[in-house]
Amino acid sequence: METVVCTGIGVSDGVRMAKARVYHQPAVRQAAAETIAPEQADTEQARLRVAAEKAGQVVEQLLQKSQSVLQEEQIGILKGQKSMLTDPAFVPEMQRRIQKQNLSAEAAVRAVTEQFAELFRKMPDPYMQERAADVQDAGSRLLRILSGEDCTALSEIQEESILLAQDLSASDTVQLDRRYVLAFAMEQGGATSHTSIFARSMGIPAVVGISGLLQQAHDGDWVIVDGAAGKCILRPDEKMIAEYRKKMQEEAQRRELLTTYAGKPAALANGRRMIAAANIGSDTDAAFALQQGAEASGLLRTEQLFLSRGTAPTEEEQFTIYRRAAEAFSKVSPGSVVIRTLDIGGDKAVPYLSIPKEQNPFLGYRAIRLCLEQKELFLTQLRAILRASAFGKVQVMFPMISGVGELLAAKAMLQEAKAQLHDRGEAYDQQISVGVMIEIPSAALTAPALAKEVDFFSIGTNDLVQYTLAVDRGNEKVASLYDYFHPAVLQLIHLTLQAAQTRRIPVGMCGNMAGDPLAVPLLAGMGLQELSMAAGSIPQVKYVLSCVTAQECHALAEAALRCDSPQEVRKKLRDFAHTHRIQLPQ
Amino acid sequence: METVVCTGIGVSDGVRMAKARVYHQPAVRQAAAETIAPEQADTEQARLRVAAEKAGQVVEQLLQKSQSVLQEEQIGILKGQKSMLTDPAFVPEMQRRIQKQNLSAEAAVRAVTEQFAELFRKMPDPYMQERAADVQDAGSRLLRILSGEDCTALSEIQEESILLAQDLSASDTVQLDRRYVLAFAMEQGGATSHTSIFARSMGIPAVVGISGLLQQAHDGDWVIVDGAAGKCILRPDEKMIAEYRKKMQEEAQRRELLTTYAGKPAALANGRRMIAAANIGSDTDAAFALQQGAEASGLLRTEQLFLSRGTAPTEEEQFTIYRRAAEAFSKVSPGSVVIRTLDIGGDKAVPYLSIPKEQNPFLGYRAIRLCLEQKELFLTQLRAILRASAFGKVQVMFPMISGVGELLAAKAMLQEAKAQLHDRGEAYDQQISVGVMIEIPSAALTAPALAKEVDFFSIGTNDLVQYTLAVDRGNEKVASLYDYFHPAVLQLIHLTLQAAQTRRIPVGMCGNMAGDPLAVPLLAGMGLQELSMAAGSIPQVKYVLSCVTAQECHALAEAALRCDSPQEVRKKLRDFAHTHRIQLPQ
Repeated sequence: METVVCTGIGVSDGVRMAKARVYHQPAVRQAAAETIAPEQADTEQARLRVAAEKAGQVVEQLLQKSQSVLQEEQIGILKGQKSMLTDPAFVPEMQRRIQKQNLSAEAAVRAVTEQFAELFRKMPDPYMQERAADVQDAGSRLLRILSGEDCTALSEIQEESILLAQDLSASDTVQLDRRYVLAFAMEQGGATSHTSIFARSMGIPAVVGISGLLQQAHDGDWVIVDGAAGKCILRPDEKMIAEYRKKMQEEAQRRELLTTYAGKPAALANGRRMIAAANIGSDTDAAFALQQGAEASGLLRTEQLFLSRGTAPTEEEQFTIYRRAAEAFSKVSPGSVVIRTLDIGGDKAVPYLSIPKEQNPFLGYRAIRLCLEQKELFLTQLRAILRASAFGKVQVMFPMISGVGELLAAKAMLQEAKAQLHDRGEAYDQQISVGVMIEIPSAALTAPALAKEVDFFSIGTNDLVQYTLAVDRGNEKVASLYDYFHPAVLQLIHLTLQAAQTRRIPVGMCGNMAGDPLAVPLLAGMGLQELSMAAGSIPQVKYVLSCVTAQECHALAEAALRCDSPQEVRKKLRDFAHTHRIQLPQ
Repeated sequence: METVVCTGIGVSDGVRMAKARVYHQPAVRQAAAETIAPEQADTEQARLRVAAEKAGQVVEQLLQKSQSVLQEEQIGILKGQKSMLTDPAFVPEMQRRIQKQNLSAEAAVRAVTEQFAELFRKMPDPYMQERAADVQDAGSRLLRILSGEDCTALSEIQEESILLAQDLSASDTVQLDRRYVLAFAMEQGGATSHTSIFARSMGIPAVVGISGLLQQAHDGDWVIVDGAAGKCILRPDEKMIAEYRKKMQEEAQRRELLTTYAGKPAALANGRRMIAAANIGSDTDAAFALQQGAEASGLLRTEQLFLSRGTAPTEEEQFTIYRRAAEAFSKVSPGSVVIRTLDIGGDKAVPYLSIPKEQNPFLGYRAIRLCLEQKELFLTQLRAILRASAFGKVQVMFPMISGVGELLAAKAMLQEAKAQLHDRGEAYDQQISVGVMIEIPSAALTAPALAKEVDFFSIGTNDLVQYTLAVDRGNEKVASLYDYFHPAVLQLIHLTLQAAQTRRIPVGMCGNMAGDPLAVPLLAGMGLQELSMAAGSIPQVKYVLSCVTAQECHALAEAALRCDSPQEVRKKLRDFAHTHRIQLPQ
């Protein structure tokens, strides 16, 4: 087979070479019927029997094959599934329902899974409560096999690979083990798609938007991904392999140089301190973030916890994750972890949240708007966050605040959660810091009113740019208009900082802009105190900060705020980097 | 049948009583197949033959029955259709295609309609060119009958009725004759849905969002619509009828009082002049607008022209409409007509524009973004607008401008259109005024840069509020957050006015806010020169202006700009109206 050089959008730098793992997402299928005709019961029972046997075999194989390489946690999950699949009541009860209630195999699996999970959840013993997750996992595996989907999930990739797919959903990426997935090449997606954000935060080289990729690639092919160049080479010839080996060595050297910055404090050349923080998606990201030199987490996204499951995570489940993150960061200074409350909406499939189909989900029912209506969901999360605050420097942050009314309503809920914990006698930080995301134009424009009510601001540039410019960053037709260097965006950041300075509250930033080496001197000059970013960018941001003084950055910010177009701003920033001999990545 | 009182959202004030006309939109059907098996040709030919006969009969009946009540224009349209349906080549050519090319009846109608329309369009004689529209109309009627849709279209309602439907699309409303449709009651829609905007601009009382309406109503029932109360009464009893007759009389008196303001100039109590302008959708709206006292048109929306058809309107077709609008307004002072270039996107079905399916069409490929890519479409419209500028005070306005880059690109296209007309020796206003809509937050925030490049601004509050607050105004789940009195929106209006004052260019407003009597003193105080609104609101706005002085308004604006919440702003405005004895509608 010949060599093919594919080009796409490079969204996460780095060069990697490994064997291809081609992942075909299951096609969208009709939902299986809920009920069946009585004469179909035998067929449905047989389908379920075959699926249950297969599920048992797969789990067993995985356990045997890979006990040595799996993390303890993963082994626990597999064992839990195994015990459910062999439980004398679980699958037999499904078979009974098919017979008695004329349910389809799928419907029977769903009904019994829910029933068992609920049963476990209500048990007094915490250990037994946690078994509800095993029930869910076993049920999911059965449904996956019944649907004809490849039953080897992404979580089961156990050798070094480059993952080729159409695009990855959030629920796909949570399954990945980054020790084995060295790089991504995707047919779809743009610079700010989920896959791209994930790749950057994990430091995984990635190229997206390669049309026709999956038709040309085969499982097991050798593949090179060159993130900076936006290239994916299928079946490279020997010359290419040699060339890229050299590149990988050079890159390793540059990485090593930057790595020396990982351990240094985030400080400007004149000594002014800033905070270089990491955006994380779960407690498990903390280790990598700390290794990259994160001094705090400016954003713990909590959405992953809520995806790929049939019911919302319990307070206990959430608390465990939040506490672990808080504990992990308490090893560094300042070590704060900003936990953002659920930021989810109609663009994600979360069946149990009952989000209506929307024409413009980004302008719809999501994040704080949803949480203020689904009060139990919100209170549960707030209690989990508050309880974690007893174990580290936890701060709570509300997303999608459009004005002071929503903020006051959210704060009232926090107060209620505190009262509930107080009644239960649970420990939490009574002075927990409360902040808002500044990610809707109206929030930046009413920052003076919001600043009276919070302890900190965090500017979320990804959404802020999107709304300020009326550009869906995932839409290829208009993506070229999406630009955080637009003067309007700089004005909103400036207004936010002015309002915060008046009330003496700190301002951080947690969008992609915060990790862009070109933007860093500008942001320092505008007066931001904390930059929170994909962990992989931290060494580089620390390096850039070390090249310039506060005064130089301030002058740059003043000049940038006078520009009329993104192009003018960018030119000023490039000239500045050049003048100050900042080495930008190619 | 018993009386039923339905409640919904009152979106256009007024009380009306008439017989119900229940309009069932055709259900969404699978698109008919393009090609057929050869053995189906006979069936398809028979389907087409029946449809063509039926179409001929309907047109003939309409012509005979209603020659006395139809407008000349409508008679012309019907006659044009008749001549095409009896043309010796038109339908026979379709039959031939079914036979020879194995096309389905629908595909044959579409293909031949396009071919004939194209043929007419290329003829040198302008009269023959206009026959292309007849071809399209005849083709549409055939397709409608083939699809099984009720062949009596909305345009054929010929007696006083109240229209009950699920919701009306733009292509539905263009067909209505407002002499016969006295009021609307709709199952769906919100205060800013198309139906609602249309109802207000036509002065048609309307209640929307009445669930279950169509199940309870029958064609020919007596119905009362009370727009202000948000009520729709099916089959009212005699007591109700008497009560509402009284209401209608009172309303008529109030209308009459306000009508005395229609003919007065828009001026504050101290004499300061403003311009009360109308938003119109076509030249045919001009007469009603002038009757209501419009002194100009601050917004001629051009979308209607592009909807419900298979190809874009020709330069000639557009020119005719624009010229008529310009001529109509040249009777008043200042009499300017601001023509907004095409503001269309993925939320409308416009097959010939090839807009991709988008996840968030309001943040996508639309308006100027689309026009800058589809250059021929844009140049054609610009030439039509320029040519109309030889017949009145025409101004051109670009929608969805997010920054100075797009504005310069649009102005370059206008320059190109001018050069083309110059080469053709056509007349146009070489000094035509050019403006931008301020409807994206970034436009307001970079107003100083935009002001250098244009002759006027027009603030489009409907979209501006939507993006500033990240709220889709059509989404019921979040509609309560949509509020043009949000302090952030007032800030953006203020920033826009400041930038305009520096460059001494005028600023108008053309969103719903401009016609809200509560907002009018605030807007006058902030410094707006022109308020453009649904024509029906003009007398009331003139009345409100006459109640207050510039100084009072200015003080109000200063106070409102210091508020922290929409509730605070609204309270200030209510108190102001109360203090100045302004009679607000109930």
